[in-house]
Amino acid sequence: MINQIDTLEMLQMRAEKDTNKIDAFEVAQIQLKKATNKMNLDPNILAQLKEPERVLMVSIPVKMDNGAVKVFTGFRAQYNTARGPAKGGVRYHPDVTLDEMKALSAWMTWKCAVAGIPYGGAKGGVICNPKEMSEGELERLSRRYIYEILSIIGPKKDIPAPDVYTTPKIMGWYIDTYNKLTGEASFSTITGKPLELWGSEGRKEATARGLSYTVEVAAKQLNINPSKATVVIQGYGNAGSISAKILNEQGYKIIGVSDSKGGVYNLEGI
Amino acid sequence: MINQIDTLEMLQMRAEKDTNKIDAFEVAQIQLKKATNKMNLDPNILAQLKEPERVLMVSIPVKMDNGAVKVFTGFRAQYNTARGPAKGGVRYHPDVTLDEMKALSAWMTWKCAVAGIPYGGAKGGVICNPKEMSEGELERLSRRYIYEILSIIGPKKDIPAPDVYTTPKIMGWYIDTYNKLTGEASFSTITGKPLELWGSEGRKEATARGLSYTVEVAAKQLNINPSKATVVIQGYGNAGSISAKILNEQGYKIIGVSDSKGGVYNLEGI
Amino acid sequence: MINQIDTLEMLQMRAEKDTNKIDAFEVAQIQLKKATNKMNLDPNILAQLKEPERVLMVSIPVKMDNGAVKVFTGFRAQYNTARGPAKGGVRYHPDVTLDEMKALSAWMTWKCAVAGIPYGGAKGGVICNPKEMSEGELERLSRRYIYEILSIIGPKKDIPAPDVYTTPKIMGWYIDTYNKLTGEASFSTITGKPLELWGSEGRKEATARGLSYTVEVAAKQLNINPSKATVVIQGYGNAGSISAKILNEQGYKIIGVSDSKGGVYNLEGI
Amino acid sequence: MINQIDTLEMLQMRAEKDTNKIDAFEVAQIQLKKATNKMNLDPNILAQLKEPERVLMVSIPVKMDNGAVKVFTGFRAQYNTARGPAKGGVRYHPDVTLDEMKALSAWMTWKCAVAGIPYGGAKGGVICNPKEMSEGELERLSRRYIYEILSIIGPKKDIPAPDVYTTPKIMGWYIDTYNKLTGEASFSTITGKPLELWGSEGRKEATARGLSYTVEVAAKQLNINPSKATVVIQGYGNAGSISAKILNEQGYKIIGVSDSKGGVYNLEGI
Amino acid sequence: MINQIDTLEMLQMRAEKDTNKIDAFEVAQIQLKKATNKMNLDPNILAQLKEPERVLMVSIPVKMDNGAVKVFTGFRAQYNTARGPAKGGVRYHPDVTLDEMKALSAWMTWKCAVAGIPYGGAKGGVICNPKEMSEGELERLSRRYIYEILSIIGPKKDIPAPDVYTTPKIMGWYIDTYNKLTGEASFSTITGKPLELWGSEGRKEATARGLSYTVEVAAKQLNINPSKATVVIQGYGNAGSISAKILNEQGYKIIGVSDSKGGVYNLEGI
Amino acid sequence: MINQIDTLEMLQMRAEKDTNKIDAFEVAQIQLKKATNKMNLDPNILAQLKEPERVLMVSIPVKMDNGAVKVFTGFRAQYNTARGPAKGGVRYHPDVTLDEMKALSAWMTWKCAVAGIPYGGAKGGVICNPKEMSEGELERLSRRYIYEILSIIGPKKDIPAPDVYTTPKIMGWYIDTYNKLTGEASFSTITGKPLELWGSEGRKEATARGLSYTVEVAAKQLNINPSKATVVIQGYGNAGSISAKILNEQGYKIIGVSDSKGGVYNLEGI
Repeated sequence: MINQIDTLEMLQMRAEKDTNKIDAFEVAQIQLKKATNKMNLDPNILAQLKEPERVLMVSIPVKMDNGAVKVFTGFRAQYNTARGPAKGGVRYHPDVTLDEMKALSAWMTWKCAVAGIPYGGAKGGVICNPKEMSEGELERLSRRYIYEILSIIGPKKDIPAPDVYTTPKIMGWYIDTYNKLTGEASFSTITGKPLELWGSEGRKEATARGLSYTVEVAAKQLNINPSKATVVIQGYGNAGSISAKILNEQGYKIIGVSDSKGGVYNLEGI
Repeated sequence: MINQIDTLEMLQMRAEKDTNKIDAFEVAQIQLKKATNKMNLDPNILAQLKEPERVLMVSIPVKMDNGAVKVFTGFRAQYNTARGPAKGGVRYHPDVTLDEMKALSAWMTWKCAVAGIPYGGAKGGVICNPKEMSEGELERLSRRYIYEILSIIGPKKDIPAPDVYTTPKIMGWYIDTYNKLTGEASFSTITGKPLELWGSEGRKEATARGLSYTVEVAAKQLNINPSKATVVIQGYGNAGSISAKILNEQGYKIIGVSDSKGGVYNLEGI
Repeated sequence: MINQIDTLEMLQMRAEKDTNKIDAFEVAQIQLKKATNKMNLDPNILAQLKEPERVLMVSIPVKMDNGAVKVFTGFRAQYNTARGPAKGGVRYHPDVTLDEMKALSAWMTWKCAVAGIPYGGAKGGVICNPKEMSEGELERLSRRYIYEILSIIGPKKDIPAPDVYTTPKIMGWYIDTYNKLTGEASFSTITGKPLELWGSEGRKEATARGLSYTVEVAAKQLNINPSKATVVIQGYGNAGSISAKILNEQGYKIIGVSDSKGGVYNLEGI
Repeated sequence: MINQIDTLEMLQMRAEKDTNKIDAFEVAQIQLKKATNKMNLDPNILAQLKEPERVLMVSIPVKMDNGAVKVFTGFRAQYNTARGPAKGGVRYHPDVTLDEMKALSAWMTWKCAVAGIPYGGAKGGVICNPKEMSEGELERLSRRYIYEILSIIGPKKDIPAPDVYTTPKIMGWYIDTYNKLTGEASFSTITGKPLELWGSEGRKEATARGLSYTVEVAAKQLNINPSKATVVIQGYGNAGSISAKILNEQGYKIIGVSDSKGGVYNLEGI
Repeated sequence: MINQIDTLEMLQMRAEKDTNKIDAFEVAQIQLKKATNKMNLDPNILAQLKEPERVLMVSIPVKMDNGAVKVFTGFRAQYNTARGPAKGGVRYHPDVTLDEMKALSAWMTWKCAVAGIPYGGAKGGVICNPKEMSEGELERLSRRYIYEILSIIGPKKDIPAPDVYTTPKIMGWYIDTYNKLTGEASFSTITGKPLELWGSEGRKEATARGLSYTVEVAAKQLNINPSKATVVIQGYGNAGSISAKILNEQGYKIIGVSDSKGGVYNLEGI
Repeated sequence: MINQIDTLEMLQMRAEKDTNKIDAFEVAQIQLKKATNKMNLDPNILAQLKEPERVLMVSIPVKMDNGAVKVFTGFRAQYNTARGPAKGGVRYHPDVTLDEMKALSAWMTWKCAVAGIPYGGAKGGVICNPKEMSEGELERLSRRYIYEILSIIGPKKDIPAPDVYTTPKIMGWYIDTYNKLTGEASFSTITGKPLELWGSEGRKEATARGLSYTVEVAAKQLNINPSKATVVIQGYGNAGSISAKILNEQGYKIIGVSDSKGGVYNLEGI
């Protein structure tokens, strides 16, 4: 059974947790090798899938509330655009690394391809601790970040979205900065915007809902009966908590959840 | 005396040799700190001088002569453009690293600023072994590299030049690719081109001649009499060998030279 | 009852009539103040709603049929684009003023916002008397006007349309000039074009139909019974005459109509 | 009866066959004159319909497999864009001429206009013999051709498609080159792409299916009963063979087919 | 004598002082009429010289130090560019008006033309009181102003410069904003920059020096002997005080100076 | 002797005269073959020199003074830009042909290369009879021609100039149209402009003066003594008549001149 579950998605989730300890991009490359071996993929194509097309690293000077200038490091990795514009979130976290960006942009590429969505994959990030920053500092950081990556994003190039610690409000700053710098009043370059700025309804539940569709397909293929299956959920933020709710509605028994501070476990269901 | 010579330029040359063993960019940052401490530089400005404005990392797929596709990794680091367009060479070498690019682009910035030239600093590189590649492979690699960094170069943005293992012929491919992609017939985006493509005369000796001017100024400030001074030269390629010739003409006694394979030493002069 | 009807829309219509005598933009600002007071709108947002984002004033030299060059003054005011591309007509009239442009662009902004349409507001105009100009002169004026405002219009920026004394034929000249100058064969920058140039069907009745929907909603909210209500219509051009027809069909009794030359009044209905 | 069938479409097909012997563009101009005479078209408009808006002729240097550089001549004729972006295929054939390009682009213009499709007409071609070229040579030719005409194509300007001896694979090279040169990952500039690159399903049968619709309309207007009608088909490639199949399904009796090598004839049907 | 001195330059200076009381642009148009009458200028050309080619009015929202958003109004008037890129300063003053901008841009046009310099004329301004604003507020105002007029300035379009209450430091913010928004490191779009940002030496004295050249030419033409001439200077800022110094060196006797607060008068010289 | 003079330049001049009867481009290709045979030029380079890089053919609709629309055909051939931006005149003549354009652009390329000037070669033309057109018609033709070729000209791409029947006034319309369409006030895209629009002094005599320099060099190489040499001049327009004057001043005896209407011949000198 373990072998069966040990799929790409599981490995990836584990890697997403531990990006600081193990090298996430190495994991992604191992996954790629395992998958393409099974496909007997042309090695000339594999060669082009093994590295991101482009990574842009930028310095982001921000005037902090105390008057000092602090310079943050930001990234935007575009892994592959052969199937369409790159797509992927931007995370604000002290532990963001170049290798993490490369790995996450690879996974975005594969997720879109496997799901048949006409997008490539990208990922962005800024090394910062948003919990210790004021709203003004976050706004200045966010606007400058978009300015710095402006030439490589757009509705036909790369479409950023929210990710760890980036909110609809930040997406609003992103699209406003994009519009100001291009002289447009267009809203297709950023997803996850506030509804008032023409963000999509249902965006908040979208990740969990996508997961529940995947679980449904996987269960059918593995002959798992939801009413007899038990579920453990790692992470209890937006994706985890809503997944728990939806899977529960679909008849799964949630027996464990955990987040960065601890976990709860009950074999009878929580 | 040692202390007196142990200046920025010396440290830098030492670092240029050992970029694989020690972290060149750390050296550059230590130099910056030492220099700016003496200047009592505003820490808000120092913060912006400590990291490159922008580094672009790109994948460069090349169809090799045997039909296989090989994907190389290329870089272009733009350290600072406050004083003018970035300026700096592109090196082709198996040991090119991101940190080396950041360090070399910092040194280009400081060299231009110290010499009062209205340029900022940049550096590029591709991880490859040009000694094992055919001319056709090198041409395809070079043209694709310029394509990949096209949006950040130009006469008002960043002006590449030759460096380790890149020749005037390669600069010719660069400028031709730049012109084809922009629809122009202009020659100001690349320096070190062949004379037929309006490269500068005297370009070959320029590095060594620049060094001799620096030596002249330094000798005057340190009260060193050329006829009584002895010189040791590390590296005996284009820069080193022509420097030996020019310094010898200026009356210095060259007592030692070395390159990657060994050295010659004679206290009476070589 | 008067007080109830004395809403934004009424004030605005009155202002549209009298732009030469009273300052239309002052009226708009009073309306804004009254509305935002009721909303307790953040004064920092109000500050940005009180003035147009941008007004471009241009000189339009036209070779007249008698060979002389006459220079007309044209305007394009873009009031606010926070909700989408600016939208608004262009009027040709001897009495066009800067303040009228600002007022009308403000009203376009609010109309789109109140109706929930994803557009901002704009208005353009040229000081001229189209009744005294030949078709050739009008064509040259129209083409040059679009040339002069080209850099601020487009499907993602600002989309002009017909207004006082500007016709579908003029919109045809506009879109042709836009296409020639951009090298495109696109039709989304101008509305109100002739059907042959992919204008919208029903465009002629659209203003009156929009009014009838507004009247319907207003009547419901004010508990007005159409069959017992009487209607007076100021202006009997495209908007007025079709409104009369539609409102009549909806059961309203039209008791008075007027245009710039006089009025008809009959309490029993016309 | 002959007179009745001797319509624009017939003349055009005959001309398409004989472009080397008779001057196809002269035929197109005669057709135009005949049609516009019947319409009493304004001669000022006719003057603008008699010549293509623009023809771009380009040299296409290609490194052949034997190392030699061969320079091919390519064309892109844009006949008229008043009704929308130009649309038309690209043919690779040794007999391509400037006049053929002009004629075919005129016919594309009229076909789109007569069918009420919001496109203008264009045609491209390269003088070459694809049967004697390797896939690598064809790829290099195709990519360079698109590069050379890049500034005049795009989703709002001109949208190339397959034609004689150009395949979906070639369209894939086209769109990839277009995307690389514009920095986009967009797929609307080229039609007839492989399905994996978001080409349209049913594209292969589209020409024949369009013909069958035309036959259906024509039969109705001429009071031809399909079950009593006989059909001869000139050309038995993609268009001809599928037309035979579809017309047969619609009850027509196919009594003759021919291609460049010979013909088959049977009054009882084939 | 009065009549002789009552030249264009005098009228203009008087108008510059009183822009709030009399309509400066009316004065400029009277001057134009008087001058072109003497030239018998073609009325078709005169028609195009009577109004500015273009005036852009923009709203400039600025976050003030107390957190509130204040929206300032800015202008850029480009009077005429037939002889070269527009050239003219930007003033920050509470009394800036549209008509003043039009008048000052006309005078810049004529000054450049009369002096034979290959530039046209422009003028910009922001309605604000820089004496009551902090440096941070001024920086944010200045950067946003350049952003708002970005599309109409540049080395081949229009080159702003300092004027009333705008300093080299403000020009530094201007050029930095221009470079950031265009991705360039170029310095030719703004004059009057600090020397460190490649401003011109002697810029501070340039206005006064230009005046002294004009005085010299005028004196020669009017047969005025400097040693017998007396000078009164209105305004004692940068232009006035340095003019006093230079004219004094050239032998003129300065008998009166005044500024916005008062004046000094001594027939024997000051 | 005949053989010695029968050089490239002579053949070319003869061809320029007879472009209607013999195929000028065939002559150019024969010349190229003869010259490159002597140079043993790499055939891969020759292949690229045998055809123009690009020819753009455009339709130029012009509203004639009688109200009718007449559509002219215009060309711009860019032969080669490897050494710099293309350079070459535009001729207005009823006999302009595609082949003539190709030939003349080839000759411009070689003239610039042989003279060591950093430009490539181009030529443009419009099929029209300027002697039968009014000034207004010529202006509208000229402005539309520049519009049609706009995307391939510019100071870094291709720089048009006067040629047969095109005057400084026409160059003025060209540069004004170029500036209006690009939003610039720049003068480097067109040469041969009126002096008031920053045309070069001495432009009128430049062709003849260039010829006299060539004659001087040729005479030296062929050991021809000017005082003993006789000269015949074909064509007596701008180039021919001024050449006669300059060569006469240099001591040559002019014994014959001719133009399109006849010739004068006197062995003793004219």
